[in-house]
Amino acid sequence: MQDPTINLTIEELRRLYRSGETSPEAVIHQIFDRIDAGDPKIWISRSSRESCLELAGKLAEQNIEDLPLYGIPFAIKDNIDLEGLRTTAACEEYGYFPSESAHVVKLLMAAGAIPVGKTNLDQFATGLVGVRSPYGFPGNSFNSDYIPGGSSSGSAVAVASGMVSFSLGTDTAGSGRVPASLNNLVGLKPSRGAFSNSGLIPACKSLDCISVFALNCGDAQTVFEVAAQFDANDPYSRKMDPPELAEPKKKVGVPRPSQLEFFGDKATAKIFDDAVNHLIAFGYEVVPIDFEPFLETARLLYEGPWLAERFIALEEVLAECPEILHPVTRSIIEKGDQYTALDFFKTHYRIQELRQKAGLIMDEMDALMSPTCPTVYTIAEVEADPVTLNSRLGYYTNFMNLMDLSGLAVPCGMRPDGLPHGVTFFAAAFHDYELLKLGEQFHAHTGLSAGAIATPVPPATVGESLPVEETVPVVVCGAHMKGLPLNHQLTDLGATFLEETATDSVYRFYALEGEPARPALVRQAEGGSTILVEVWSLPLKNLGKFLKGIGQPLGLGKVTLVGGREEVGFIGEACAVEGAQEITDLGSWRVFLEKK
Amino acid sequence: MQDPTINLTIEELRRLYRSGETSPEAVIHQIFDRIDAGDPKIWISRSSRESCLELAGKLAEQNIEDLPLYGIPFAIKDNIDLEGLRTTAACEEYGYFPSESAHVVKLLMAAGAIPVGKTNLDQFATGLVGVRSPYGFPGNSFNSDYIPGGSSSGSAVAVASGMVSFSLGTDTAGSGRVPASLNNLVGLKPSRGAFSNSGLIPACKSLDCISVFALNCGDAQTVFEVAAQFDANDPYSRKMDPPELAEPKKKVGVPRPSQLEFFGDKATAKIFDDAVNHLIAFGYEVVPIDFEPFLETARLLYEGPWLAERFIALEEVLAECPEILHPVTRSIIEKGDQYTALDFFKTHYRIQELRQKAGLIMDEMDALMSPTCPTVYTIAEVEADPVTLNSRLGYYTNFMNLMDLSGLAVPCGMRPDGLPHGVTFFAAAFHDYELLKLGEQFHAHTGLSAGAIATPVPPATVGESLPVEETVPVVVCGAHMKGLPLNHQLTDLGATFLEETATDSVYRFYALEGEPARPALVRQAEGGSTILVEVWSLPLKNLGKFLKGIGQPLGLGKVTLVGGREEVGFIGEACAVEGAQEITDLGSWRVFLEKK
Repeated sequence: MQDPTINLTIEELRRLYRSGETSPEAVIHQIFDRIDAGDPKIWISRSSRESCLELAGKLAEQNIEDLPLYGIPFAIKDNIDLEGLRTTAACEEYGYFPSESAHVVKLLMAAGAIPVGKTNLDQFATGLVGVRSPYGFPGNSFNSDYIPGGSSSGSAVAVASGMVSFSLGTDTAGSGRVPASLNNLVGLKPSRGAFSNSGLIPACKSLDCISVFALNCGDAQTVFEVAAQFDANDPYSRKMDPPELAEPKKKVGVPRPSQLEFFGDKATAKIFDDAVNHLIAFGYEVVPIDFEPFLETARLLYEGPWLAERFIALEEVLAECPEILHPVTRSIIEKGDQYTALDFFKTHYRIQELRQKAGLIMDEMDALMSPTCPTVYTIAEVEADPVTLNSRLGYYTNFMNLMDLSGLAVPCGMRPDGLPHGVTFFAAAFHDYELLKLGEQFHAHTGLSAGAIATPVPPATVGESLPVEETVPVVVCGAHMKGLPLNHQLTDLGATFLEETATDSVYRFYALEGEPARPALVRQAEGGSTILVEVWSLPLKNLGKFLKGIGQPLGLGKVTLVGGREEVGFIGEACAVEGAQEITDLGSWRVFLEKK
Repeated sequence: MQDPTINLTIEELRRLYRSGETSPEAVIHQIFDRIDAGDPKIWISRSSRESCLELAGKLAEQNIEDLPLYGIPFAIKDNIDLEGLRTTAACEEYGYFPSESAHVVKLLMAAGAIPVGKTNLDQFATGLVGVRSPYGFPGNSFNSDYIPGGSSSGSAVAVASGMVSFSLGTDTAGSGRVPASLNNLVGLKPSRGAFSNSGLIPACKSLDCISVFALNCGDAQTVFEVAAQFDANDPYSRKMDPPELAEPKKKVGVPRPSQLEFFGDKATAKIFDDAVNHLIAFGYEVVPIDFEPFLETARLLYEGPWLAERFIALEEVLAECPEILHPVTRSIIEKGDQYTALDFFKTHYRIQELRQKAGLIMDEMDALMSPTCPTVYTIAEVEADPVTLNSRLGYYTNFMNLMDLSGLAVPCGMRPDGLPHGVTFFAAAFHDYELLKLGEQFHAHTGLSAGAIATPVPPATVGESLPVEETVPVVVCGAHMKGLPLNHQLTDLGATFLEETATDSVYRFYALEGEPARPALVRQAEGGSTILVEVWSLPLKNLGKFLKGIGQPLGLGKVTLVGGREEVGFIGEACAVEGAQEITDLGSWRVFLEKK
């Protein structure tokens, strides 16, 4: 583990850049020093220090406030194109120089991010172990006897080791989540199609997702916001509606105890118990659900016709030079031509049944939560049994893209042997923002630091930067106050109580004739008193409905509160008070009601 | 053609039932007389007159206002289950007695509809001609030398001949649209999954849609509203958001002239020209678009791996007793086992590319419009060349479900030989309501009557019964009026001008200090004048935003207009007028501005 001289989280770097405490150039030097001193097997190729300094230098012409990733160093899994470096997918002979960067890489760079290199992976993104690469492989960032997790091994270890702020992985079967769990990182597997796959070497073209490794959920969200842009050139790109967070149900589903599988690993089982307790501790109901539809779907990914997609992706290689493939990768992929279209449709029918069942379960919850992977293995163990142990690691991840879900891996705790372990939150497609908000609360609650160099995890703030339903404070002074006859007109429209306060001393107060009794607040050009009022928060979109229900002589305008603040609230027409009983001296509608 | 003694449209029957001019029992007798005298080859099996009379009689216990299909007779294609009659899919040996009715049939019957029988079809819904049935086949309802269109032949002819008000067909490749076109009917192919397929014999399970034949778009909508309900037991059922019609762009795309294909049939080519002119005549822009992505997808349906789905649906039959199949049907379906999963995924990738292109085109339009089928053939012509001519009929229909679109076939005109011909409107999934509204306008504009017995087509009313954005009239009397400085605050929020009118004679009117100049309308307990005002229509959800922007001493309350009507509008606080210039005598803010 290296000296934590700098906190590379996006928020912290931006703070340091804004204050002038550091500069993008200084950060590039620091991380290149680290990279040069670190494990070279994290990388398949690297940008030069000079080219990164040049990019950092160019930022001086720009305003940090225009660039959400101003001077943020990142790494790219080597199955995603970066102009200027070869793309290999961990197969040297397959490698090529791309004519342009991948769509998401362009978006990230346009937002100020600086790519420092291409990371190692399980060849052709086939694997969850991180040791299936002819380039060698990095050890786990906590203990190099253990696997780093894959297939996005280098991308995860680079972030965990403090070499970059975030990285791009890919996640077809779990490759963006398993390495996150094993390196104490957040791993966001966006909804299918939220990130463009233009410039990605396909594994299973209909399922592949580019993913994000980050030190916290806020950073993952910042990257997501920049990169999740529709791309008409990617047939699988999908338009995402502008985010608006739904009110949480405060309910998370977890697999029934009998459906949890840790392959005998009590330490990771204990961490999942802790995860459930964290959720309960911050106010969530945790509901055991039937996990079998997910598990059956997971089994169908590697034991069924979707292997044909991996075969298609490498059809020329398999025909012309299969020897260039890693032997384990080859043994898996070359089986992909044995399926018929009948096999495909029969499996598709079954998955559709399972999706429908899963959807009904998920409709009741904010999200489901499972362990990210059941256990962890040493490199020696995986080398002795490369396929079986790899399969086990996908127990909780393989179903996700077949079912069109969004997923977020979040760290949860440390095993007694010092290895990290995490959980994954998941929900239907396009719930990425909801998952990030929940994940951030959860992450903050674990008390963990992030990665392998103890980067502090910030308190939950994701929600704050997200567009949420706009509300407006509404001042009420009579029958709309708490417990009074017209209060339901507010609560029916989703209003919540904010505060009790008083008007500025510019009002006279009247009790109008009629039932239910209503007051009128009449502002005075001179003189007047302070009247007790309540302020309620009403969804702005419902304010019109509320107004529509108000009859003469009342209406809504601006009410001046103590201190001069003006808020939307009840005003009375002047004629209202003619003949009405003045109750200014009572100072409060409740006092009037008591005395009546 | 039979005597048009009764107009069987849903709206007309409901009118007659409500007024007591007829009863469900009387209608059952009338249609059974017609059915008994008509072509028996329309039907594969029929409900008894007595059982229908019993259902009709039971309606007496119910309120017509609770049952949108109260006493409405309908027919069911014989690949959809109706409890009590065998389901055959036009294969006698395959037939079975279902244990319950199909999900949609149950919904229609629960809404008061009365099923009178099961209709003939191209066996296993494979075909667009309507003559591939061992039960014989009905002739075209306009000229029995011509094909009725298929596969839903009997369902279309039953409606066109005035035997039922509507019918259920199915539409995988065009089976719900081609027969609609050839029998002068509306044919709604709902979005995939909007109707449950529980109780349907699959053709291509992932693509099949139960469809509706009706005499007009309003009737089709009524049936759609009843039947489009999520069904957790159908893995392909999808939840549909509550309909809210988007504001039309008034733009419809049509294939470029070079991509139109009529196989030399000038009569149908002329009718499509007419269709374009109809659209232009009622205010639509008609835009030629590149139709090739749709055409290429169409070709992939019957020339590619989706045939495997038809094979799976009949796998046992093909293995055990292939001789029970119609020879043409068998020759098509038995090729379905020759495709590999590699073929499937490669075709899927291509379709996904084409879908993405098509989606970008459709995003710019309300809908696309094409001929429903290129031409029509005699029965003798099809018998001489059953496969090629059938394929031609699917030129404009086969792509629809592969691309996940909603489609609506609408009659357009009559050929010189007296045969009808129509067009199809289509859009992305879940635009069913928008298509129905457009289709109804179009249908009314053609001046046609419906079916083969000259049922009148009602004027366009579909939109009226649909939920549209709620608006609220807002009374303005000063700077918010048309052309004045604050008018943009209304128009920015989507407001439209409604009328110029005046207040009741209970107001005094003041010009406030400040810029821009604003008036205050102050209601008087006694006396007062009439002031000229404008009324604008504002989306209710934006009324709150408008209110939020109004500063002291103004607000929104209720303004009393001439005649006593009270609408939301500007009110002034009493203190506002102290020291302000009274301009009541001018009677209008515009007069004040002129004099200023």
